[in-house]
Amino acid sequence: MPGSVMWKWASRMDEDTPKKFIRRKPMEENINDMIEGLLLKDRTMLSRAITLIESNATRHKKIAEEMLQHLLPLSGDSIRIGVTGVPGAGKSTFIESFGLLLCNKGHRVAVLAVDPSSTLHGGSILGDKTRMERLANHPNAFIRPSPSGGALGGVHRKTRETIIACEAAGYDVLLIETVGVGQSEVMVRGMVDFFMLLVLTGAGDELQGMKKGIMELADAVIINKADGSNLDLAKKTQREYKQILHFLQPATKGWTTPALTCSALYQEGIEQVWGTVLRYMKMTKESGLFLRNRNMQAKEWLYAQIKEQLERAFFGNEKVKRLTPEIEKKVMNEEMTITKASGLLFDAFYER
Amino acid sequence: MPGSVMWKWASRMDEDTPKKFIRRKPMEENINDMIEGLLLKDRTMLSRAITLIESNATRHKKIAEEMLQHLLPLSGDSIRIGVTGVPGAGKSTFIESFGLLLCNKGHRVAVLAVDPSSTLHGGSILGDKTRMERLANHPNAFIRPSPSGGALGGVHRKTRETIIACEAAGYDVLLIETVGVGQSEVMVRGMVDFFMLLVLTGAGDELQGMKKGIMELADAVIINKADGSNLDLAKKTQREYKQILHFLQPATKGWTTPALTCSALYQEGIEQVWGTVLRYMKMTKESGLFLRNRNMQAKEWLYAQIKEQLERAFFGNEKVKRLTPEIEKKVMNEEMTITKASGLLFDAFYER
Repeated sequence: MPGSVMWKWASRMDEDTPKKFIRRKPMEENINDMIEGLLLKDRTMLSRAITLIESNATRHKKIAEEMLQHLLPLSGDSIRIGVTGVPGAGKSTFIESFGLLLCNKGHRVAVLAVDPSSTLHGGSILGDKTRMERLANHPNAFIRPSPSGGALGGVHRKTRETIIACEAAGYDVLLIETVGVGQSEVMVRGMVDFFMLLVLTGAGDELQGMKKGIMELADAVIINKADGSNLDLAKKTQREYKQILHFLQPATKGWTTPALTCSALYQEGIEQVWGTVLRYMKMTKESGLFLRNRNMQAKEWLYAQIKEQLERAFFGNEKVKRLTPEIEKKVMNEEMTITKASGLLFDAFYER
Repeated sequence: MPGSVMWKWASRMDEDTPKKFIRRKPMEENINDMIEGLLLKDRTMLSRAITLIESNATRHKKIAEEMLQHLLPLSGDSIRIGVTGVPGAGKSTFIESFGLLLCNKGHRVAVLAVDPSSTLHGGSILGDKTRMERLANHPNAFIRPSPSGGALGGVHRKTRETIIACEAAGYDVLLIETVGVGQSEVMVRGMVDFFMLLVLTGAGDELQGMKKGIMELADAVIINKADGSNLDLAKKTQREYKQILHFLQPATKGWTTPALTCSALYQEGIEQVWGTVLRYMKMTKESGLFLRNRNMQAKEWLYAQIKEQLERAFFGNEKVKRLTPEIEKKVMNEEMTITKASGLLFDAFYER
């Protein structure tokens, strides 16, 4: 119950808070401390809460679940912004510049990363906080690297739960970064209110290599690095993107996706990007779309999680795993019908 | 065993074939007759085989499965072409014109339709054969309306199995029509070698209303109705689509998706469309992509079918069905975490 937590929080205001970090109780016993820590906007406690959320241990999952049930009513009051773009588009510089602007306006900004590939490549896109050192050192900012741990679905769950924890800890702007090359964009689009696509100058070449359909997920296309000798090219790119966007369906009904230029390096145009976000928020809140989107996102997440769990149970079954390669090969060579093949796998699953 | 079927077929060549249609044995007993009928390229028998494939009765499914296992080795030697476009783009006229051209070249052309919405609206896009009367009356053509029967997955399965039956019956060009508005395009893209998108003149207006990402599924964009007073507009539309296609990723790696104009009404440009398909086939067969695509499609179909079956079992469970609305509502209102919600539903499913 959040009520009792609030009470406990109030009653402990005078205690020597840091002491409990030194004590380092086992995670299990710290759930109330953790919730209190979050409400006190304690960054270290938030980090520990997220570590708990990201843990794959069954007992941790149970505690995390209990904690999240407490935090859920305290979450939601924020702007969730997705930021994507191919490597080289200047995501880090942009996020740092954008984040600092917001922090200086008094917002509390949390930066999260979704990068399912990080486990494959042995490195995370946000693994190194020095990448955005100035933002990381701002008292209003919180930066968290990408969770490791395999499947896209798992990363997805962890990120969504981390959003809840950050919001409960008073972060009112969430920047969720993703590399613009995989399947993660669709998932991130499904957990944010506003989705930004950062692009390189030279639209033609870039779009060729861009993930299919990604343009149609974006609520704003942002051409960063519009400075110095690159300025003319950036303006040309802006015109090209405007033209393409004119032909495509907007990501959000009733919203015209703009193409904006900015220079994160020289802090130019960043304020306009924020203005665009605010204009979008105003429009969607007034029309009721904002809330409808959030409700729908929660529902879709539920179904995605159930489906993932069903598939994990099926394809993780030992007998199914043993049979699959041979059956798959026969299907691919058109030696066995799909119905026969799936029938055999279901027989194995149910041990008939 | 196809071998024994072939033998039986040969041994019955002299029999009075039409007699068996009059006898009208129950479907169960007719599997060999059906296979033989297909190999004799008997259109009525093909219709009956497809009716069997489309049946939702469990005992029919079993027989259909047995029949398909026999037909599978006889299938595959064809060009599978998907045709989509919004209503009004002239799909029927185009398919009739295109189909007649191919029939007159000596090809045997089967036209199938995928329209999951047909059950909702009480009518099928191909329900009325008079829509393409000239093609329907050609001895080399076979037209089959959209299968009814609910879910997209079901329609998908039936269409894929119908493809196998048609190919076994000697049809070497398959035209699979779909209305360009729903989820069916992605599924049809997953069962064809070449995917055509028919568009209206006036790209700007149309693309606004077009399904997201559909342009990036197309191996050719075809502007039909390029005749009379519409010709100039069609040429302008062609230029616009070329420009957009230049920016987008092609549906098939290494292939540049062209924008073609034609007039199905005046039989102009139809030969060029066929030339494009042949050029595509040559390229993908030489590079090995053709076979790789087909193998991959079969594999993806297997996984899609398994997932669909898992979900049907779960969400069709009586207890899950009873609990879902309340839990879904709590999730949408952010009163319950996703993990808690899915946990409750899985508990109901497993009756714990």
